Amino acid sequence: MSPLNRCDMTQPKFMLEEGGSTLRILVATDCHLGYLEKDEVRRFDSFDTFEEICSLAEKNKVDFLLLGGDLFHENKPSNSTLVKTIEILRHYCMNNRPVQFQVISDQAASLQNRFGQVNYEDRNYNIGLPVFTIHGNHDGPSGVDNVSSNDILSAGNLLNYFGKTDLGCTGVGKVTVYPVFIRKGETYVALYGLGNIRDERLNRMLHEPHAVNWVQPETGDGTPAYDDWFNILVIHQNRTKGSPRNGISELLLPRFLDLVIWGHEHECLIDPQEVPGMVFHVTQPGSSIATSLINAEAKPKHVLLLEIKGTQYRPTKIPLQSVRPFEYAEVVLEDQVDVDPTDEATIHVHLHQIVSNLIEKARESAATGSLPKLPLVRIKVDYSGFSTINSKQFGQNYVGKVANPQDILVFKKSGKRCKVTQGSTNSSGEVDINELNQQTIEALISESNLQMEILSVHDLNSALHDFVNEDDTRAFHSCLQQSIDEARNKLTTATEDSTNIDEQQIACLLDQNMQDPEENGSSSSSQQAGRKRRAAPGGGGGFAAAAAGRRKTDLTSFQRAPTKEDDADATKKRRAPVAAGRYGAVIRRR
Amino acid sequence: MSPLNRCDMTQPKFMLEEGGSTLRILVATDCHLGYLEKDEVRRFDSFDTFEEICSLAEKNKVDFLLLGGDLFHENKPSNSTLVKTIEILRHYCMNNRPVQFQVISDQAASLQNRFGQVNYEDRNYNIGLPVFTIHGNHDGPSGVDNVSSNDILSAGNLLNYFGKTDLGCTGVGKVTVYPVFIRKGETYVALYGLGNIRDERLNRMLHEPHAVNWVQPETGDGTPAYDDWFNILVIHQNRTKGSPRNGISELLLPRFLDLVIWGHEHECLIDPQEVPGMVFHVTQPGSSIATSLINAEAKPKHVLLLEIKGTQYRPTKIPLQSVRPFEYAEVVLEDQVDVDPTDEATIHVHLHQIVSNLIEKARESAATGSLPKLPLVRIKVDYSGFSTINSKQFGQNYVGKVANPQDILVFKKSGKRCKVTQGSTNSSGEVDINELNQQTIEALISESNLQMEILSVHDLNSALHDFVNEDDTRAFHSCLQQSIDEARNKLTTATEDSTNIDEQQIACLLDQNMQDPEENGSSSSSQQAGRKRRAAPGGGGGFAAAAAGRRKTDLTSFQRAPTKEDDADATKKRRAPVAAGRYGAVIRRR
Repeated sequence: MSPLNRCDMTQPKFMLEEGGSTLRILVATDCHLGYLEKDEVRRFDSFDTFEEICSLAEKNKVDFLLLGGDLFHENKPSNSTLVKTIEILRHYCMNNRPVQFQVISDQAASLQNRFGQVNYEDRNYNIGLPVFTIHGNHDGPSGVDNVSSNDILSAGNLLNYFGKTDLGCTGVGKVTVYPVFIRKGETYVALYGLGNIRDERLNRMLHEPHAVNWVQPETGDGTPAYDDWFNILVIHQNRTKGSPRNGISELLLPRFLDLVIWGHEHECLIDPQEVPGMVFHVTQPGSSIATSLINAEAKPKHVLLLEIKGTQYRPTKIPLQSVRPFEYAEVVLEDQVDVDPTDEATIHVHLHQIVSNLIEKARESAATGSLPKLPLVRIKVDYSGFSTINSKQFGQNYVGKVANPQDILVFKKSGKRCKVTQGSTNSSGEVDINELNQQTIEALISESNLQMEILSVHDLNSALHDFVNEDDTRAFHSCLQQSIDEARNKLTTATEDSTNIDEQQIACLLDQNMQDPEENGSSSSSQQAGRKRRAAPGGGGGFAAAAAGRRKTDLTSFQRAPTKEDDADATKKRRAPVAAGRYGAVIRRR
Repeated sequence: MSPLNRCDMTQPKFMLEEGGSTLRILVATDCHLGYLEKDEVRRFDSFDTFEEICSLAEKNKVDFLLLGGDLFHENKPSNSTLVKTIEILRHYCMNNRPVQFQVISDQAASLQNRFGQVNYEDRNYNIGLPVFTIHGNHDGPSGVDNVSSNDILSAGNLLNYFGKTDLGCTGVGKVTVYPVFIRKGETYVALYGLGNIRDERLNRMLHEPHAVNWVQPETGDGTPAYDDWFNILVIHQNRTKGSPRNGISELLLPRFLDLVIWGHEHECLIDPQEVPGMVFHVTQPGSSIATSLINAEAKPKHVLLLEIKGTQYRPTKIPLQSVRPFEYAEVVLEDQVDVDPTDEATIHVHLHQIVSNLIEKARESAATGSLPKLPLVRIKVDYSGFSTINSKQFGQNYVGKVANPQDILVFKKSGKRCKVTQGSTNSSGEVDINELNQQTIEALISESNLQMEILSVHDLNSALHDFVNEDDTRAFHSCLQQSIDEARNKLTTATEDSTNIDEQQIACLLDQNMQDPEENGSSSSSQQAGRKRRAAPGGGGGFAAAAAGRRKTDLTSFQRAPTKEDDADATKKRRAPVAAGRYGAVIRRR
């Protein structure tokens, strides 16, 4: 039974039985709207699939659509892309369907827009399908105003943009993650979002004691205990492979989480996986469109229907039907018996045969779908011992037959051979272009070892990154401006600080006293209870019965008391907006 | 009594007496949102004034806000500009105030968006203040999809974008102007919009027999006769001065109009003026922000409150309070007694004195306003016989005192002297940068005299213009694409055409028969009635009593029968969407 069928069949029964407290979320990520918008054949691909995702959300009657970043391919989307995106969102999000969940946290703290509220609570708009998203590396905030393309949709009330950070320009930066607290009946979900931060920086922040503060719900007053909240984190980073500088390890994330939704990685590994040594699961939905023609992107694309009841969840993966077919193969010329190194024509014949087979394969699998689209075809050719052939000329035979005639073939020379392995997912030798860019820029910067007083190398690094990768021509200007402002503030507050120091120390002590007992208590009690896990993912139709292993088991690691005055001060300041909201919160540091 | 006070005082009484059939419109133009958004001092100017305009619309309880183009300064506004604009529109347009007029024409024909309706009729939005706009030369449609930045706001249902044209790529082009037919009580207004077309092209079109078709209301079925409609045209072009190539003459506009709202020209000439030889009036509201520091922009900025009842109207100009003060002076060094050609210091002293006086003058006039803003100061120096001084260095004395220290002084050398004439509006020697650009590009193109079959020089000219002036990197691509598509269509329809020719001829004859009697009839009847004028502008508080001179007096000039088969065909095709709407229409050609 395919996941789609399963979902369709169980849903009505399920809704009747448990709809009142079951939060239904459709999860997708990396839609890259506007990707290849200048390509004659592929220009509508990103929009077609995003429209399919929205229609799946409608069809499955979810409470909301949750996106993991990179909704836009560019942070400055073209007018045409903006118009198409707005039209799709308006078509699917604006209707009379009642919204059946509440956001009970301080909305202004987690949703940074001028109106400071979740979009469906604006009485001037008739929102039937709320959409929540964080930003990715393609559509992150930039410029003096720290504005992302998602802010345009948020200003127009079509999107709930959370997880936006303004790290400032001093040192490694600090961030307080204000989650969106969601309640549906007896189900309480804390939705944490962390929009993309450069991997290297976030890595440093996660290693530094008080750089990332995770706000957690305060208990009492009608809301349940910590243990009864389901904690989701949406993150958009590289997942660690090789050097930890180029990605974030799951092991760095806080252990109170129950489920991590990992954006940015385009490979679809959507079935929630257990992380060895941690209590949470990770789902990696993968992009809804292939932006690099590598093996990992040739796998079928899916979105996830996530049903949460209490602290248990059930994942159902739904295949996307509108994705352009993509067939991938690797070939080592040396190993082919019908290829003669002295006769280039034999290489041509051999490769043409493979392309024909792949086109045929795509046609066969598309027959089960709806509309036939020209397929993407990519062959990685190991040409060691042979000469390359003209890839563009080769592709001219396939104009009108494949969607990418210009780059069907890529050549590489390798001592280590890669056999024709269409099944393997992480074949070596493939280079992620994003990583390459990042490494090069950082390497260039790190060669110099300057120490400046007002402008830090780190901030200039960020600005250079934004300038090069996000085409933000004002990156340096805004970096300079922020640094000057901060330096100015430091100068003016220097005198005040010296008088306030006693007050800060008292606040710091108070803070310790308030936090420690609870943390110790829950830590010891849950240690006695032993570690249990959340509902087993992918298992059967119903919710798995096993009680969840609570994240409090390791709360000792969050108990670091503030050691510096400025930290205590920062804590005080940051808590203020939360305390003013409808639902207070305690900050946990990692 | 200032116009603002007058408006405030007469309004409540007026509303009680005549509100039911009086259409109230606030007219503004050239808001140039995002202008100088990178300037430290002036970056919020355009938004501040646009916000004031919206608040004036709210305060004066108008039925809608009407904009004359160039809402955005750039066709690809930055994310930050889009966010700010959307926030302002959302704040002022979304509310429970009832909309008290109807759009009774085929909305999909005049408002080109996917949803094909006026924004306040979408039941998912609570629109209290509709905004109508055409595009200007800064925010016109471009690219393969022919998308303007106004389309972004239109897609988000914040704007009713009309007057959008797609002239295609063959020859001079044709355009059918579908007006928005508005009814409020017994008042019927036909709102024609013609978004900016390059002056040279529109000039050619207006001279060519059937290039511009003006759709007029069909009478009967509960709607009044032609004579009882009030016809407004919103246009965004240079107004003729010098060579007619660089502007549009009022004399080229159709004579059935009652009022022309002229955008693009930044000088505020808002009191409706009679056009000698024509029956309509022209109001030129002028920009709401000074984008070039010339004398014409130093005059106080206004918006227009337009009240229409039946076929009479009353204009009330309202001064804008938030506009940054701007003082302008011209000085001829030769004429100054205290300036010695051999001593540069005396020039400095003299000019510093003038700047100080202007700053003082700005301060005095700002005292009556609300918030003091740093003024703009510009001195045009005729330095004939003297040497120039370093303008940037000169300005350093005024950082923090004026808003434009970097360009206070501009130098020019002239045989003809310009005295210090702060009063005169059209002093010679000032160059409009827009005109300069246009002339240069056109001159370059016109030097060559190519004749190509598929790509026309004219279209390449347009593409080059878009590429240079609107930073549209896809201009050539889109021109090429459209030309190819059109050529392809011609090839495929060639056979069909030869078989359809009889049908077309019949349609052509039918069309003539349907139009001629009515035109002749109304022409002769109104000629008998003689020419009268519409309500006198600026006169007294009430509506002027003189009956309006009807535009039918010259309808003989519209009677040209279609002479070519393709014209008849085009008429048929274009009429189709109108006939399908709620309110049929007859096309008049000019």
